[in-house]
Amino acid sequence: MVIVGCGLAGTTAAEAARRQDRSASISIIESTPHHEYSRCGLPYVISNDVEPPSNLFLNKRSYYESSLKADLVLEASLEEIDPRGKTVSIRKGTEVEAIPFDSLVLATGAESLDLPIPGFEKEGVIKLRTLEDASQISKAVESEGRAVIIGAGLIGLEVADALVRRGAKVTVVEMLPEVLPTVFDASIGGRVREALSAKGVSFMLGKKVSSIVGFERAEGVMVDGELVKADLVVASAGIRPSTEKARRAGIAVGRYGGILVGERCETNISSIFAAGDCIELTNKLISESRPIQLATVALRTGEVAGANAAGGGERVPGLFGNTSSKISGLEVSATGLSEAEAKSLGMAVLVADSSSYEYAPYYPGGGNLTCRLVVDSGSGLLLGAQFVGGGAAGWGNLATMMVAQGLHISTLAYLETNFSPPVQNFWPAPVVAARRIVRMLASKRAIV
Amino acid sequence: MVIVGCGLAGTTAAEAARRQDRSASISIIESTPHHEYSRCGLPYVISNDVEPPSNLFLNKRSYYESSLKADLVLEASLEEIDPRGKTVSIRKGTEVEAIPFDSLVLATGAESLDLPIPGFEKEGVIKLRTLEDASQISKAVESEGRAVIIGAGLIGLEVADALVRRGAKVTVVEMLPEVLPTVFDASIGGRVREALSAKGVSFMLGKKVSSIVGFERAEGVMVDGELVKADLVVASAGIRPSTEKARRAGIAVGRYGGILVGERCETNISSIFAAGDCIELTNKLISESRPIQLATVALRTGEVAGANAAGGGERVPGLFGNTSSKISGLEVSATGLSEAEAKSLGMAVLVADSSSYEYAPYYPGGGNLTCRLVVDSGSGLLLGAQFVGGGAAGWGNLATMMVAQGLHISTLAYLETNFSPPVQNFWPAPVVAARRIVRMLASKRAIV
Repeated sequence: MVIVGCGLAGTTAAEAARRQDRSASISIIESTPHHEYSRCGLPYVISNDVEPPSNLFLNKRSYYESSLKADLVLEASLEEIDPRGKTVSIRKGTEVEAIPFDSLVLATGAESLDLPIPGFEKEGVIKLRTLEDASQISKAVESEGRAVIIGAGLIGLEVADALVRRGAKVTVVEMLPEVLPTVFDASIGGRVREALSAKGVSFMLGKKVSSIVGFERAEGVMVDGELVKADLVVASAGIRPSTEKARRAGIAVGRYGGILVGERCETNISSIFAAGDCIELTNKLISESRPIQLATVALRTGEVAGANAAGGGERVPGLFGNTSSKISGLEVSATGLSEAEAKSLGMAVLVADSSSYEYAPYYPGGGNLTCRLVVDSGSGLLLGAQFVGGGAAGWGNLATMMVAQGLHISTLAYLETNFSPPVQNFWPAPVVAARRIVRMLASKRAIV
Repeated sequence: MVIVGCGLAGTTAAEAARRQDRSASISIIESTPHHEYSRCGLPYVISNDVEPPSNLFLNKRSYYESSLKADLVLEASLEEIDPRGKTVSIRKGTEVEAIPFDSLVLATGAESLDLPIPGFEKEGVIKLRTLEDASQISKAVESEGRAVIIGAGLIGLEVADALVRRGAKVTVVEMLPEVLPTVFDASIGGRVREALSAKGVSFMLGKKVSSIVGFERAEGVMVDGELVKADLVVASAGIRPSTEKARRAGIAVGRYGGILVGERCETNISSIFAAGDCIELTNKLISESRPIQLATVALRTGEVAGANAAGGGERVPGLFGNTSSKISGLEVSATGLSEAEAKSLGMAVLVADSSSYEYAPYYPGGGNLTCRLVVDSGSGLLLGAQFVGGGAAGWGNLATMMVAQGLHISTLAYLETNFSPPVQNFWPAPVVAARRIVRMLASKRAIV
């Protein structure tokens, strides 16, 4: 077996393959100098919470040989896949070698987009994707005072939080009218933005960076004709599946450039599997496949691709993009479809927002838990949910269980949630929101 | 409508009744001088987290008349229920009055047990049930340095935590071999005990207080022939449903003395409903009814009893005793059946424990989340779960959803949990434990 990519999906695939088949020969090919480390941890390298940065490596380099009994080749790039001849051509330095495979797992990941902005190539403009990028940002912030972040997704805001904690003056520029536009509906994202604003982060929303100014180094960005001075520009506006070689070999990709896989993580070519950030997935809520570029998805698809490439019969459970973070001390979580997504898919939905104090009303020190539930107005099934505040991640897991198992919103409205003054309110916000939707469903029935 | 008891169940019943019927006449009879306040908050009055203690009142006295349009009579005790004549006799001071009702809600609560220990009547021995008890304990600890707590249930440990934080020297005496014996299996309770021990609380487990020594005031307790000096003795060893008047009126009670009710919270006598700590409930896991004396159950049964007493058609969802607390900084939660309970009911179960760091391995500052899952070995359905550590309450809610909806353990094993370095691990302990049980079920099938 050959695995291309030694990130989270590739490493997980190797582990699953080894569990499936104790004697299989497993080769892992990785284009960078590094074996797997946690990309999700990069913002915390910048904030200095994780120190030294090498703590992001969960395994030693020797783990692959000694524990996994796999042959790991670093700084070796995929040149070509020959599906008929069942070989991959690998370039290491100037040498190109053809390696035969019985089964192949593509875990080639994704790459950050170069934004089509004049001046994007200047020094001091950094895309945060690698450990080197994080170290560069971290070093820059020691001496430089002003940072502009392009893109207000989760990673952009995690970096904004990290930089402002390091004492930088931070401005976030986002094309869309509210932060976290692909994770949250606008009404919920606002809470996160307010928390970061309170820490001193500036936001320019609904605006585009038109150019990056400066001589060799970036000295600022132009936004709507206004100059925002910056010593450091972090671009965090989207990643693209790395699938060029796969496409050339006739492996089918979807609309977003991700490799199309079925439940078994197999591509259109038998014995060739794919996992992680380089794939597109569908689930029962959406008819069109799309990339879900999360560590959790890399783990789960890596497991299945690896096991099946070694002869197993695993299937990926429905994956709905359950995601969490902590930004400016606020826990956030989202799963399934937002209202905007559901409506863009032509679905008729009922939506309820609710916000309530996280602890008993008399217990000091807590904040509000805010939630939004998106429910199919015909069936009453939960389609998606968004949470901000204490306990958000746990609610995200529960909502994902409901989406995955097709549970009616009334099961949440009448759920026996626990209560303790310093832990959780009598009527947590999600239960209140669910009851509101149960009433909407009842009155809708009454009208029809 | 007459409601007896103005605690959480009674107040919630009045609110639900008013929602159901805007014009109903509602009288609430309460034996103490207080309308509803949060009993669950009493330990936090002792710890001084809640100050003044009157913050535990969630509503003003005037709320009942002005908002609920209900007639609230305090310091009035129930003397007799006449189900045929549909009247209750109420004593206020020396006067006894008969009040007619169309429907009656009994929300008479529970009382702390007087323990059969010589010297229990001495000064300085306090059962924690009321606001006055909490104030007395709080006052005592200002001048007294040594406290003994009899009973290591959740409330006993919450009080131990509060007292040790106030600077007292605290010893907890528990008859059973581990703390939290009715909430947790012994292997899990140990983590909570260790956390309290680290703060300086002493434990005497598997031991009984044989007498309370001292002249008029308690000066210590005898435990297995050993004198433990104490200026303050807090008894927290069980409560009993207050149902004497109900029993005399022919209302059926169960083995534990609680009023037996069905899904509608109606007793064996039509138009007489009951809710809260005075009732016994059954659920699909247990054939025998039992009291579940939690605020969450008082809320949910109060809602149903009140609505139905006013002509509604509500039903109580399955209630499984989902409970949480925070002790010595550790969040804890439990729901459904423990292994010990399930086995005492003759069930064949599979059990898995798991413990893992709550955050990403490299993110500092977290602790372990420990869990135990109890699964029916025939069906693979989750019967109960216990959690200690960060996120415990959220997992308790998710496990309760699984128990209530009859979900197979594989739905947790393959749940798409979210991940973020400062929020939640890739593989949270409950997922690890669930996978372990899935493997046990598979190998069991293989053997059969």
